[in-house]
Amino acid sequence: MSLIVQKYGGTSVGSVERIEAVAKKVADFRALGNEVVVVVSAMSGETNRLIGLANNITDSPSPREMDVLVSTGEQVTIALLAMALEKIGCPARSYTGAQVRILTDKSHTKARIEDIDVHRMQDDLAAGRVLVVAGFQGTDADGNITTLGRGGSDTTAVALAAALKADECQIYTDVDGVYTTDPRVVESAQRLDQITFEEMLEMASQGSKVLQIRAVEFAGKYKVPLRVLSSFEDGPGTLITLEEDESMEKPVVSGIAFNRDEAKLTIQGIPDTPGVAYRILGPIGEANIEVDVIVQNVSEDGTTALTFTVHRNDMKRAEEKLHEIARDLQAPTVIADADIVKVSLVGVGMRSHAGVASQMFQTLAEHSINIQMITTSEIKITVVIEEKYLELAVRALHTSFGLDVVDQSE
Amino acid sequence: MSLIVQKYGGTSVGSVERIEAVAKKVADFRALGNEVVVVVSAMSGETNRLIGLANNITDSPSPREMDVLVSTGEQVTIALLAMALEKIGCPARSYTGAQVRILTDKSHTKARIEDIDVHRMQDDLAAGRVLVVAGFQGTDADGNITTLGRGGSDTTAVALAAALKADECQIYTDVDGVYTTDPRVVESAQRLDQITFEEMLEMASQGSKVLQIRAVEFAGKYKVPLRVLSSFEDGPGTLITLEEDESMEKPVVSGIAFNRDEAKLTIQGIPDTPGVAYRILGPIGEANIEVDVIVQNVSEDGTTALTFTVHRNDMKRAEEKLHEIARDLQAPTVIADADIVKVSLVGVGMRSHAGVASQMFQTLAEHSINIQMITTSEIKITVVIEEKYLELAVRALHTSFGLDVVDQSE
Repeated sequence: MSLIVQKYGGTSVGSVERIEAVAKKVADFRALGNEVVVVVSAMSGETNRLIGLANNITDSPSPREMDVLVSTGEQVTIALLAMALEKIGCPARSYTGAQVRILTDKSHTKARIEDIDVHRMQDDLAAGRVLVVAGFQGTDADGNITTLGRGGSDTTAVALAAALKADECQIYTDVDGVYTTDPRVVESAQRLDQITFEEMLEMASQGSKVLQIRAVEFAGKYKVPLRVLSSFEDGPGTLITLEEDESMEKPVVSGIAFNRDEAKLTIQGIPDTPGVAYRILGPIGEANIEVDVIVQNVSEDGTTALTFTVHRNDMKRAEEKLHEIARDLQAPTVIADADIVKVSLVGVGMRSHAGVASQMFQTLAEHSINIQMITTSEIKITVVIEEKYLELAVRALHTSFGLDVVDQSE
Repeated sequence: MSLIVQKYGGTSVGSVERIEAVAKKVADFRALGNEVVVVVSAMSGETNRLIGLANNITDSPSPREMDVLVSTGEQVTIALLAMALEKIGCPARSYTGAQVRILTDKSHTKARIEDIDVHRMQDDLAAGRVLVVAGFQGTDADGNITTLGRGGSDTTAVALAAALKADECQIYTDVDGVYTTDPRVVESAQRLDQITFEEMLEMASQGSKVLQIRAVEFAGKYKVPLRVLSSFEDGPGTLITLEEDESMEKPVVSGIAFNRDEAKLTIQGIPDTPGVAYRILGPIGEANIEVDVIVQNVSEDGTTALTFTVHRNDMKRAEEKLHEIARDLQAPTVIADADIVKVSLVGVGMRSHAGVASQMFQTLAEHSINIQMITTSEIKITVVIEEKYLELAVRALHTSFGLDVVDQSE
């Protein structure tokens, strides 16, 4: 008998009919002899409806009261799903985050899970019940309702799987797995049967939105096997594992991620002295602007240039800040450019394979795509290019690294 | 400084605008130097929307899950009201029933309050905050969410007032007080400045729907001064007190209540032997049919007739049951009649005044209204009459007992 935690997102429980379909799926899975814990989000649209109510009252609602408000969304879903399960003869019991006692810190609207009490859940599982747990929410030590922030239901599912020592944590979503790249950009993108946590983390942090990055981190840390699969069609999905599968001939590159949400800022003609990077990026960090890729060029004339990327929404603020800093440093030029994208090759195979970077640069060169920035990590190579080349670059790299679907009929 | 518990029903918090109006009212009241605890219901329509969702899934949802579902209604209101209060500079904090720890028994959908933990609330009051508490809900000893049944927010308010030893419990509603009778039936009905708990209980049990009968019982038991007043207009409302006001010239009759929801059942020709009433009403009670007025006539021929009233919805069931009983008792006749109403005079003044009953009967006789049943208690006289005479009877009695508004310009 396996213990499985399943998580269904807002779209999967978006109507009474869909909740009934989820109930059927869960009951079938239990009938196969599994113990099942189900984590659900609010019905799609509900969280936005609740936020809309709050915004009709005030632009700056207290975070504590926002959590009291939006946590009702999942509470509605757990009750309805438990009813739907009981209706088809599957014993079930719903739990709010506070009822499980998913203990979090006190950071309302973006709380972090500190501890999970498993005793009551284990009693209910032993009694043969399916547990239906509200995702995204918990309680702090003083009994205040907290939420984990948007998408936090994935984190709830992984944390419950870790605490209950579940055999697998299954994240049901509207896609049927993790792909080599976004199928909307590359038609021949393939679903991956398996991917490592490290790769998934790099994919997620580069804009592949299948899973919340915190949930992946959590699963990696607690060694919870994680599977992404579709709510709407049957299939094996993608298993996210701790170890790369040695028995298989793995491709060097597992996937290609990209991100259109960033902008590039350059400050030129700065004195090439120790500490200058800190004097520039320190004030940017203090202004709560998150910096992603950073590149500093080697100087020829005693001055240097620093280039970095930030979220596009932060570009204006970062640019203003940079002008202030430029005045202090007597640096002549600040350039802001929103017309960029980041493209990353991800794969644990890179560790043992040389030549990935040069093959990447050659492929881009063959298509006359100019590379503006380059950074690398052990399992990732990222380039920043002009936005209009995004589709061309991703498709060319997808083919070049052998990721295209092989037509089975050939 | 007074500690006041205020309760606002679903209509009073039925929209964002109305919630803001309530916030204003509460903040003004606090600004006068009062400590305020506010109890709110779900926004009007919300509870029915939630019940509708459940009914789309199953005709017989588990009571436990219904409570998880519908309790979200008040949770939304408390968050929004707390936000609205904070927006206008009034420190506030919301509490669900479980967060207060309103401990109830385990009777889901109709739980009874067993205990209220006041420590956390007292800390918040001492810190100058307005407390916004979800009405209608609590938690059992195992942490399951319970609800008190429809209208239970009144009970929550009174129970909180009792536990906190509040100076007054104010129930804001869509009427501006308790009236001598229903103003829709008698135009000259007057708002009462004051009424005793006993009178209010009799009025409520006779169909005057201003307050939940359980809330009145609770307030009487714990000696909580209770005031009914309007959410939408200023005014003193009606104070429900423990003692009748000796300083005032009280009318003998305080109000006239009536009830159209009952039906009358008669079983005739039964043997006039000890225990026969039990043999008839025992099975009716076992069938979960509540019996209200009961009258047994004196027999002339060794047989007797028993007449009683039940809720109209139960009439068919009661009639079938009665036919079974009639067969056992070899009683010849069972008569069911839905065409009746109950009219009651209520007033603590009756205790010390003779002649109220005869004045009532005389008034009805003058209007040729036949009395079908009579029962009396210390502070109430009830008659059952044909339904078509309802308005005529109530108006005639209202005038006869001096309850009509005296035109101030006279």
